[in-house]
Parts: sequence; C-alpha cells; structure tokens
Amino acid sequence: MIIVMRRGAQEQDIQHMIQQVESLGMKPTLLRGTERTVIAAIGDERKVPVGMLESGPGVDEVLPVLAPYKIASLETKSEPTVVRAGSLNVGGGNLGVIAGPCSVESEEQIIESARAVKKAGATALRGGAFKPRTSPYSFQGHKEAGLKMLAAARQETGLAVVTEVVAGEDVELVAKYADVLQIGARNMQNYRLLEACGRTDRPILLKRGPSATIEELLLAAEYILDAGNQQVMLCERGIRTFEAHTRFTLPLATVPYLHSKTHLPVVVDPSHGTGHTPLVAAMARAGIAAGADGLIVEVHPNPEKALSDGYQSMTFPQFEEMMAGCRKVAAAMEMKMS
Amino acid sequence: MIIVMRRGAQEQDIQHMIQQVESLGMKPTLLRGTERTVIAAIGDERKVPVGMLESGPGVDEVLPVLAPYKIASLETKSEPTVVRAGSLNVGGGNLGVIAGPCSVESEEQIIESARAVKKAGATALRGGAFKPRTSPYSFQGHKEAGLKMLAAARQETGLAVVTEVVAGEDVELVAKYADVLQIGARNMQNYRLLEACGRTDRPILLKRGPSATIEELLLAAEYILDAGNQQVMLCERGIRTFEAHTRFTLPLATVPYLHSKTHLPVVVDPSHGTGHTPLVAAMARAGIAAGADGLIVEVHPNPEKALSDGYQSMTFPQFEEMMAGCRKVAAAMEMKMS
Amino acid sequence: MIIVMRRGAQEQDIQHMIQQVESLGMKPTLLRGTERTVIAAIGDERKVPVGMLESGPGVDEVLPVLAPYKIASLETKSEPTVVRAGSLNVGGGNLGVIAGPCSVESEEQIIESARAVKKAGATALRGGAFKPRTSPYSFQGHKEAGLKMLAAARQETGLAVVTEVVAGEDVELVAKYADVLQIGARNMQNYRLLEACGRTDRPILLKRGPSATIEELLLAAEYILDAGNQQVMLCERGIRTFEAHTRFTLPLATVPYLHSKTHLPVVVDPSHGTGHTPLVAAMARAGIAAGADGLIVEVHPNPEKALSDGYQSMTFPQFEEMMAGCRKVAAAMEMKMS
Amino acid sequence: MIIVMRRGAQEQDIQHMIQQVESLGMKPTLLRGTERTVIAAIGDERKVPVGMLESGPGVDEVLPVLAPYKIASLETKSEPTVVRAGSLNVGGGNLGVIAGPCSVESEEQIIESARAVKKAGATALRGGAFKPRTSPYSFQGHKEAGLKMLAAARQETGLAVVTEVVAGEDVELVAKYADVLQIGARNMQNYRLLEACGRTDRPILLKRGPSATIEELLLAAEYILDAGNQQVMLCERGIRTFEAHTRFTLPLATVPYLHSKTHLPVVVDPSHGTGHTPLVAAMARAGIAAGADGLIVEVHPNPEKALSDGYQSMTFPQFEEMMAGCRKVAAAMEMKMS
Repeated sequence: MIIVMRRGAQEQDIQHMIQQVESLGMKPTLLRGTERTVIAAIGDERKVPVGMLESGPGVDEVLPVLAPYKIASLETKSEPTVVRAGSLNVGGGNLGVIAGPCSVESEEQIIESARAVKKAGATALRGGAFKPRTSPYSFQGHKEAGLKMLAAARQETGLAVVTEVVAGEDVELVAKYADVLQIGARNMQNYRLLEACGRTDRPILLKRGPSATIEELLLAAEYILDAGNQQVMLCERGIRTFEAHTRFTLPLATVPYLHSKTHLPVVVDPSHGTGHTPLVAAMARAGIAAGADGLIVEVHPNPEKALSDGYQSMTFPQFEEMMAGCRKVAAAMEMKMS
Repeated sequence: MIIVMRRGAQEQDIQHMIQQVESLGMKPTLLRGTERTVIAAIGDERKVPVGMLESGPGVDEVLPVLAPYKIASLETKSEPTVVRAGSLNVGGGNLGVIAGPCSVESEEQIIESARAVKKAGATALRGGAFKPRTSPYSFQGHKEAGLKMLAAARQETGLAVVTEVVAGEDVELVAKYADVLQIGARNMQNYRLLEACGRTDRPILLKRGPSATIEELLLAAEYILDAGNQQVMLCERGIRTFEAHTRFTLPLATVPYLHSKTHLPVVVDPSHGTGHTPLVAAMARAGIAAGADGLIVEVHPNPEKALSDGYQSMTFPQFEEMMAGCRKVAAAMEMKMS
Repeated sequence: MIIVMRRGAQEQDIQHMIQQVESLGMKPTLLRGTERTVIAAIGDERKVPVGMLESGPGVDEVLPVLAPYKIASLETKSEPTVVRAGSLNVGGGNLGVIAGPCSVESEEQIIESARAVKKAGATALRGGAFKPRTSPYSFQGHKEAGLKMLAAARQETGLAVVTEVVAGEDVELVAKYADVLQIGARNMQNYRLLEACGRTDRPILLKRGPSATIEELLLAAEYILDAGNQQVMLCERGIRTFEAHTRFTLPLATVPYLHSKTHLPVVVDPSHGTGHTPLVAAMARAGIAAGADGLIVEVHPNPEKALSDGYQSMTFPQFEEMMAGCRKVAAAMEMKMS
Repeated sequence: MIIVMRRGAQEQDIQHMIQQVESLGMKPTLLRGTERTVIAAIGDERKVPVGMLESGPGVDEVLPVLAPYKIASLETKSEPTVVRAGSLNVGGGNLGVIAGPCSVESEEQIIESARAVKKAGATALRGGAFKPRTSPYSFQGHKEAGLKMLAAARQETGLAVVTEVVAGEDVELVAKYADVLQIGARNMQNYRLLEACGRTDRPILLKRGPSATIEELLLAAEYILDAGNQQVMLCERGIRTFEAHTRFTLPLATVPYLHSKTHLPVVVDPSHGTGHTPLVAAMARAGIAAGADGLIVEVHPNPEKALSDGYQSMTFPQFEEMMAGCRKVAAAMEMKMS
C-alpha cells in the first residue's frame, strides 16, 4: 500500500510509520518528493487492517494497491466458471434464463408459470417461498409449502428451481427442494447466511446489495468460496441512486467490469433493475449485449393480481416477446441460449 | 391512493380500475381533468399491494397517500418514547452518549476504554463481540468471550453495555450479557433478526442501512414494534453517496425529519457517518444541534493498533475534547447529558 | 395536483386550501378519508408554482400529476423526431455514430481521426475546440482555430461536425463551423446558453447533467424547443453515484424510458458513461440493444498522448472492433447504421 | 503519482511507463512487489494529464498523490480568509447570516424582507433578480429592475446585498448593484462565468453543484482565485442522493473537511439543503455546530404566495425563532454573529 504523509510531516512521524510498516511484515520504501513524502509498503496488504496506518501521526491518506479478494479473482483462476444446475447452464458462452413469479402463490400459479416460461425458452424457474418484505404487513411467502410447490413445478416441466434463502438456519431445508439458492440483495452482507451457503453443495445466486460496491460484492462471494462452494453466480439487480423514474438504477457496466476482475459468471436482473414492466425487455437485451451470462426475470400469469412485485412482472405474452428480442441479440453475441 | 391514468386511456380501462379499487375494499372517486383522468381510492391502502394496480391497463402511475408504517408513527403515539437501559437514557430531553471501541479485543482493552469514556461523560459502553466484516479475512470478533469481557467492564464501571447481534439465533445469548442489542446497518432488513429482537425485552438500537430510505427504516422498526418490543432507538449512521472524502455521507436532516414522523428517539453515529477521526467531533456537535437524542462514538486506547475501524476511532484525549464541545452545544439545546 | 392534508388538519385549513386552489384557476375536489383528507386539484398545474401550496397550513405534501414539460412530450407529438445534419441521421430507425477525439489538438490529429472513424463506419466527427475543464491548469482547447481544423476535417471526409459550445455569446461563432452544437453535461442548466441554442438553426446535442433527473433534462430541452429549435437530440452520458469502479454510472434504462415520454431521439455516450476504455465497447452494444438512436464515442490516434480524456479514448483498431460488434447488435435491432 | 501495473505486466510495458514518467518531467521509482509492480512518480503531477498514463500498456490504475488545486489550499495560505462586504463578515470567527426571499418580487416585498431579517439579526440580504429556473414556464426574475429594488433595500436598511449572476456577460451589471455576487449551484462549472467573477472586485459566494465533489468545488474556486479575486466564500447547499424526504441531502461533514483543506470560509444553505421549511432551523443550528462561517436562508413575507421556493422559505416569525436558536449554538461555539 501507499502511505501519503501530510505536507510538513515531522521526521519522527515518518520514522514511526516506517517502523509500523515493518512491524506488519511489509517492506517500506521511502520516497521524498518536493511536495510530499510517500512510503510505499510492499507485501501482502490483505492481512493488514489498513485503518491502523491511516490513524498514524502525520498520515494524510493510505492508498491500497491490491484487491482484497483472492479466490474470486481472475488472477487466481483465469478460465471462466460455468455454473450448472439441472436444466440451467450459466457462463462460458451459455446464457441461462431464469424466469417466474416473484412469490410462489399457489401450486396452480407456479406450474402454469413454469410451463409458460419454459415454452418461451427459459432454462430455469424462479419463485419465492421465503419472502423478505419491506413491510411486516406484506405477504411473507408460503415457506416450506411454497418449496414443495416449486418442486412440483420442476417435476412437471424439468426446469431447475431457483429460490431465495433468508437465514443460515434455513439453508438445509431450502437445499432439499431447490437446485440453486438465491441470496437476496438485502442479505448480501448477512455473513452467517453466506457461510452456510458456502457449506452446501447447491450453486448460489448472489445478488448485489443496492449500495454495495463491486469490491464488497466480490468479498461477499469470497465468504462463500472460502467456505468451500465454488459454484457462485453474481447478480446485478440495480443500485440506489437519485433517479426516481426507475425503482433502482441498473448499471450494466458492472458486467464487463466484473468479467475483467473475476471468473464468476454474471446474471442481470432487469425486473428489479428497473422496477417497471415496460422497461424490462430493453434492459434484458442490453444486459446480453453488455456480456451477461444469464438473466433473471419476473413473470406472472396476472401481474395485476400478484401478491408482490406486480409493477415489474411481465405477462406470459410480454415474456415471449422479450425472449424473441433476446434471442436475436444473443445470436449477435454468439451466446447459446439453451 | 391516487391512480393517474395515461392521457388517452380507454373508458374500459378506467372502469376496470374502478372495479379493481372496489375489489380491494377501497372507495373510488373518479376525477376527469382536461388532460388526465385520476382515480382517488380512499381507504386503508396499507393492506393493499400497490403494485397490483400499477400494472393495470392504462395506468400511468400510482401515488400512495398514507405512510405504510403504523406503530412507529407519531399519529399513533404522540409523546416521545424514552429508552432506558441501566445508566443509559435516550429521548425526551435526555442525551445518551454511547462510546467505546469498534471491537472488544481483550478484557484489559475494554475495561480501560470503559473507564476512560465514563470519565469523559459517556453514559453507555459500546464494543463488538460478533463483528460482521466486509472481508472473510478480517478479525471476526471474540463472540461469547467478548460478551463476557463487556459484562466485566459493566461490572467495573456501571456503564450499560450496547453490543451488536448479527443473527436471530444469537439474540438470546447476546441478551444474556448486553443491556441494549444493536442491529447493524448491514442487517437493517434481516427480518428474521428483527423479529427475534422484537421478542426480547432488551432495548434495540436499530441502525439505518446505507441505502435505506426513511420509510424503509421505519418499516424495519415496525417489525420489532409489531413483534412486541417498544424500546427501539433509531440510529442515523450515514448513507452511500458519490462523496469520496468521507466513507459515508451523514445526512443530519433525518433527525428533525424523523422527529416529525415518529415518537422513537434518534441516535447519531458520527464515527461511521464520516469514517475519519478528524471529522467526528464536529459532526457529534452538529448531531446534537440538529436535535439528536443520543450519540454513538468509536473510542480506542490506541487507534493505530485497533483490529477494526482505527481510521475513525478517537483516542481518549480526543474523546474528552469532543465531549467538552458537546456539553456546550447540549446546554444550548437544553438537553440533559447524564 | 393532489394536496394531502395532515392527519388532524383543521377544517379552516382545509377550507383555506380549497380557496387557494380556486384562486389558482383550478377546480378542487374534496375527498375525506378515514385517515386523511385529500384535495384533488384539476386543471393545468404547469402554470402553478407547486411550492405555494406546499407551505399552506395543515398541508402534508403536494403530489403533481402532470409532467411539467410540453413540447418535448410524446403527448404533444407522437411520431419520433429524426435529426439530420449532413452525413448524420439520428432517430426513426437510423443509428448515428459520432466519433473522434475529446479535444481537437492539431489539424493533423483531427483529420487523421476523421479518416479513421469514417473508415470504421462513423457517420459524424466529434472534437472539442472550446473545452470546459475541471481544473484551470488543464488544456482549455484551441477555440476558433480548433473550429477551423474541424471544418478542414469535414472538407476532407464529408463527415458532419459535432462540437461543444460553452456560452450563449459563442453560439453564432460555433454555428459558423459546426453541423451540430453540443451542450455539455456541466451546462445542461445554463439557461442563457439553452436559449441561444434555441435561436440557431443548427441541431443540438443536449447532454444530461450527472445529477439531473429525466424531468430536468426534458425541461432543459424544453428551453431549446420553446425558443424555436426543434432539432434536439438528448444524450445519456452517465450519472454520479457511489460507484467508484467507473467514473460515472451509465443508466441505460433511461433510453426506453425517454422513448416512452418524448419524441426526441436518444444518443448514448459510453465513453463518459464509463470513463474507462476497456468498458466502452460493451456499453456501446448495450446502448444499441436498449434502443438508442445514436452513439457518441471518444477515439484518439494515441490515447497515451491525448491532452484530455486519454483514459476513456479508444485507439483506431479498438474502435473498428467496437463497430464490428455494434453492427451485429444493430442488425439484431433492425437499425440502419449509415 | 503511483502507477499500479497489472499482475503479469510485461517487462517492456514497465520500461515503457518508466520512460513516460520521465518524459513528463517526473522522477520514477520502480517498486517490485511479490504480487504487483508499482511505479512511484515523484514531481508536480498537477501539470500532467493523468489520463495519459492510465491508458498505457499493462497499467491497472493510476493513483494521484497531490491535490490538484493550489491557491485554495491550506498548504498555500494557512490563515483563514475573512470575507468582508459592507455589513457582512464571514470567516475568522465571524458568523455571517444572509437572509431574504428566493426572488425579488417587488420593491415593497424586498424592503419589507430586508427590515424583518435585519431586525432578527441577519447581516446581509439575499434576493434573486436573475433567476435560473428548471422550467422555461417559471418566473425568471425581474433582472435589472430587481437589482435596483435590492439597492433600494440596502439604502433603507444598510444590509449588504447578495445576489446571483448567471452569465459572464452580466457580471459588470450585477456588480454595479450588488455587494456579493453569488454563483449558483447549476453554474458551479460555468467556467466563463467563474473567470468573469475572478476579474471583478466583488466578493463571490460560490455554491457547490449538487453532484460536485469537494475537489471539483475547490477547482471551481481556483478558477476565480487564479483570475485574481481572493474574496471567495464556498457554500454547501446539498447534494443529490437517493433520499426523497428532503429535496437535497445536506452533508455537513464538508464543513470541517473543507476547513482542513482550504483557508476559504464555508457558508451553509439549510433552505436548499433540505427543501422543506420545517427542517431548516435544525440544520441551520447544526451547520453552526459543525463549524460553518455563515448561513444563507430563504425568508419570505408570505411563502404561500412566493413566486419561487415557497416550500423552503421561512416566515418572519419562523426566522426570528431560528435566529434565537442559532444565537445560543453560536455562543457555545464562540462565534460572533454580527
């Protein structure tokens, strides 16, 4: 790391910081400039709480040089990770499409949805049984009963099931029914949950929190990887910004950026990423053109009657039309869509 | 709520929406303007998933009229809630000051800290035993051993203990040692944890997530209140913005705004809210002047050696100086500081 | 507009607000709910300073119903506007590609750039002669001499010239040489400049300010349209968010959103929108897939020697490769690229 | 600056970058770490377009070490600048209070306002004659006639006049009537205007743009200082964030942060910083407690009838009450308020 001393820092402060760097097992190099003195500390800064040094005497700022994540890094593993779960293939040229309702509402609803999204070309089924909801007065999901409905829909259609798990203690239960465990945006830094997901053998879909930096997302993935599970998909689902015409802002530059930093595949969620049905298809296409390895999209038999997220759910015909557009862009990108 | 129809919406769409409103148990009023038609739906919109209506035919947007939280609302309870936990009084003219290190590192460190912050005027001790950390490679806290060290420090100084709980399954354990349970910013929407905190009899310090709206914060509080625990303090600890000269942006207007919406007391965290020690004292004073009911501040015997958050921790002398300034502003505000 | 009264608002306050609404020439409808009283004001709210009503007694909030822009609105003109300027066609199925260096540095540099981008398929040349720079110590552009170099490059290649104008008093001068006048992001709300651009007969490329809402962008366009110039292209070039891995965050959902609100064409700037050359091509493709009518891209003979924006400029071979990818996506979208 | 090379960067790339650094007149030091190679470039990096180096072969990132502003820096001038303009003193222990309506609406209105704010303790009068407005359909100000009304109010009360100038070509005219020229948030990077303000002898109140970084604000000030005018006040008036309960987010930590970087005084605008009258007084007090050197506040005889900004304007009695609270906090801070 680079320690920038304040202009006019005392000689004793500089010597103190050099000793600090050495005591942390790093090699200091002192660079005296005309305006500032800088200490370069060479070594593995990941083991060092940078904060220690920032509060040192005469220190102006500390600039880290190394990324703090390791296993997720392209420097550790250069070939792309391909995640496979039944009918779903994501990464390495495969474009997975996960579609279905926000919440599992009934067996009829989820089976009808599974059939429709499969027919339109989806390769996995989404549906929430454990629903984290902003308000305690909203529908909270059918829990295990919902998981059984999802399993029935898989039985019926062959589609892999992707569903959310909201607490470490539920991982075993959800893994009994699901093919892929989703960690929601609100839980991206629920470390107890990340660790539990790291100990299961189910692939994980890890959603970016709405104010998480890319480094924080990769460090969250690192918790799962470090606990032993290498089948992790990252999901961009939009960030909180000042924009009010969309519910979140979907920053697609994260797709190529992540591909330049990590071997993990990247899935785009244009439903949460916009929060308005009329914008979803355009952003699904844009996600593919930006290089996404997968999409996750909310589709409902009757969005007007949906118990959650109706404002961003597509009808079956809307989803079919979206898929037609996506297929053309995927072909232009030479991505396999099934 | 107000349903704004698109210009040129069909008559059948308007009639359809009127029926939808009625089927949700609300009373529709049709308002035909020269440019737009609007349907006002009168009734308790809190029970209704607004999304249902937004996806209706011909609908441009749906504007909610009622706040979605109830128990937290000033409309439900107009006198301010005062939270009391041993030596700590927060709200109703009492300014509580919670201070101590980010992490409990050793019994010696926490007892030394407790003595120092008490001497400077703090009315409660903070210290983390369960530490949610961005990187899996960072110090994760001493867990139950840390809780015991905190209890020893309380024994020694009489200061109430405020410490974080990170999972619903830990609530009982942490409540055995702590006087106040803190819910961290990353867990503000960990509903399993919120519900478990709602069932304990310990007061709760609920931190705002860095991208949470005030409505989301109050709905998170509502989970705790709705589960039976009325002793909730809200904590403003900074939000994620584009500003890079501070780690987070501390938006103090939330203090008077919250006081205009809820009876719950508001605590300000100038340490996380700025992320840089030299800015903490000014923001502590500003928090009091904005009307805060409490402060929570990171103080460490030797920030340069801190296992976490050294860059935003004060030394004992810095904290004493901060408290001297705060006492003057508190006097100007007619707040009691002990 | 909808005036939501506070719970427990006095009858005299309600009557006062009804009179206020009437005095503004709007028709009030009083809706008494179980929890709140609401006054719907029907009429053209664009003429009314909403702020007047918000400060009224007993008022909780005022919700506008109509968009404040008119001429830019799809409700005023439903067919898409096509902007034509020499070799450049933008809108109505035509995808314009504007490319070239950030700054015009020399006649040789701009002519070399013009030839290269034309060969790769660009339909217009960009290059700055008047450069608004963050620091007073940075290169500020060659001014009129730069405009002459741009004209020479047009002479040489036939490409239309797009260049920035930074003050109302320069509009006439710049219009003498340029085919399209660009209003930069920093000047999106420089109303004196907008009005002057409204009085010229050159088409305008209006860039969104990094913290402007879509409504503010459309109102800025409205200044130009209202002054008489109907040839306006809107340009999404990224917004300021907490993300630090890109210089700005490029929110492509603005493309379909704008198409749902305005007839004006939308150009995407993936260079400023990311601020890093390696991310530009992916976001150019994504912009097209999202429905953009044009692209504006920074290309430089030798980015390492560029006097500005080298970090986001493409080399000629990088731009050629980008264009090959864009052509495939444009074909998938059935857009004409020349 | 520090050039971080990619892992596995080629030796020839490293040598190329060393030559680049030398060709820019800086002294390179090569630091080979176990994981990365870093090149430290010592010298005055302010003269160098950093972008040049970032696009070099094998470069991962370039970290600047020096702040890019000079004259504004505390390193250049360590004693605080005190700005004086007639009745107004700002900086060096003097707390200036600038108050008045958003727009000058009539001579009667501005004189009545001047008397009222003077009586309550304000030391300067604000009022807009040239109004930059988001919508072309809003009231745009009385222009020179408004300036004359301001001069009349000064004549009547002795209060210094602070008013906005929106274009370089107007500076001379506005300076004829005003004591302080205000550069609005929308114009913070209108460099033509900054330069013109740098050539006048009137003090300048420079407002931070809603998405400007502190570095950008100081560089904008640098344009004025570099052109010869040393009497510059910086004004924090709120930034654009995701928060919707306030019109802007007022980040008061900028006050102590600016004091640690620059000698220029800092004024806080709690009216625009919150956008809601009921929040203004608390944020005015908080601004003082954070260390502000001045306040600028919107006050109107009848906010319900204001032609602009009624929602954030105080009545005369509200302003008097605000001033009573501010006086107490100012006394606690040992600031002079007249």
